[in-house]
Amino acid sequence: MTSRLPLANLITLGARDFGTLRDFYRRVGWPQVMDDGEFAVFELRGIVLALFPLAKLARDGNTEPEPSSGGIRFTIGIQVDSAEEVDQLTAHMRAAGAQVTKEPVDAEFFTGRSAYLCDPEGNYFEIAWADMPHNLVVIATRRAAGL
Amino acid sequence: MTSRLPLANLITLGARDFGTLRDFYRRVGWPQVMDDGEFAVFELRGIVLALFPLAKLARDGNTEPEPSSGGIRFTIGIQVDSAEEVDQLTAHMRAAGAQVTKEPVDAEFFTGRSAYLCDPEGNYFEIAWADMPHNLVVIATRRAAGL
Repeated sequence: MTSRLPLANLITLGARDFGTLRDFYRRVGWPQVMDDGEFAVFELRGIVLALFPLAKLARDGNTEPEPSSGGIRFTIGIQVDSAEEVDQLTAHMRAAGAQVTKEPVDAEFFTGRSAYLCDPEGNYFEIAWADMPHNLVVIATRRAAGL
Repeated sequence: MTSRLPLANLITLGARDFGTLRDFYRRVGWPQVMDDGEFAVFELRGIVLALFPLAKLARDGNTEPEPSSGGIRFTIGIQVDSAEEVDQLTAHMRAAGAQVTKEPVDAEFFTGRSAYLCDPEGNYFEIAWADMPHNLVVIATRRAAGL
C-alpha cells in the first residue's frame, strides 16, 4: 500500500439492462465521457460513474452476479448547495425516471435537507444539502474531490 | 439541477454487522474521519466511504434493506500507480480480511493490471493500474478527484 490515499472513485454499476440504464443517466444529463456500447461512463465531481453489463462485470471479477432483488444496499450521496436544490434535483431525476422513495424533507441525521431515490435498477442516491460547513464529513468530501 | 457537476462522492455502504465491517476498514488503514458508533467514515481520494447500519440506512431512505445475497452488483475502482502496487494493495487488503476473487492479472479490458476483491460483506473493489495516461476514463477520474 502506498502512503498516499488511494484514488478510489470509479464506481461501476453492474447493469441488468445496459441500454435502459444508460438512457436513464443520459436523461439525467450528466456528461458522458465514453460509451462503447457496453461500457458507459459519466463524469461527476468526486466520482466517475460507469455502467457495465452485470454478467460481464461478474465474469471480469471472477465471481457471480448478485441475484436481482429489491431494497437498498448502498447509496451514492450527492451534495447540493441549498435546500431548494435538493428539491430541484429530486424533481429532475424523477422526471428522468428515478423512483423517489423519500421525498425531500428536513434531514434526520444532520442539519439540512435530504431525499432518497433510485435509478431504474435500484441503485440508490441520497440527495442532500447539509447546512454544516464545518462538519468533518462535509469537509472530507470536498477535500476528496479536490474542492 | 445546477449547471455545475454535482458533488457525488459520499459512498455509504449499508452494514449488516457494523462493528465487523468497520474493523475491516480500520485494518486496511484508510484514514477515519469520524465514528459515532453507527456512522463510520473513511476518507480516500475521490470518494469518502461511509458505513451505516443497513436497517438504519433503509429506514432513512424510506425503503427496505436488500436481502442478503452473494455475488457482485457494483465495484469501487481503486487506481494505483504501477502493476506492483496492484499486487501490493491486493495482498494488503487480503491480510486485512478481504476475499480476493480474482488474483492480480494483466487486465482483459484495458492495458494494465487488475484484481477484484470484496470486503467481509461482499462489497467489491477492483484494484487496477491502467497504463493508459491518455485514456478518457483515466483522465476523467483524475479530474473528478481534483488531481
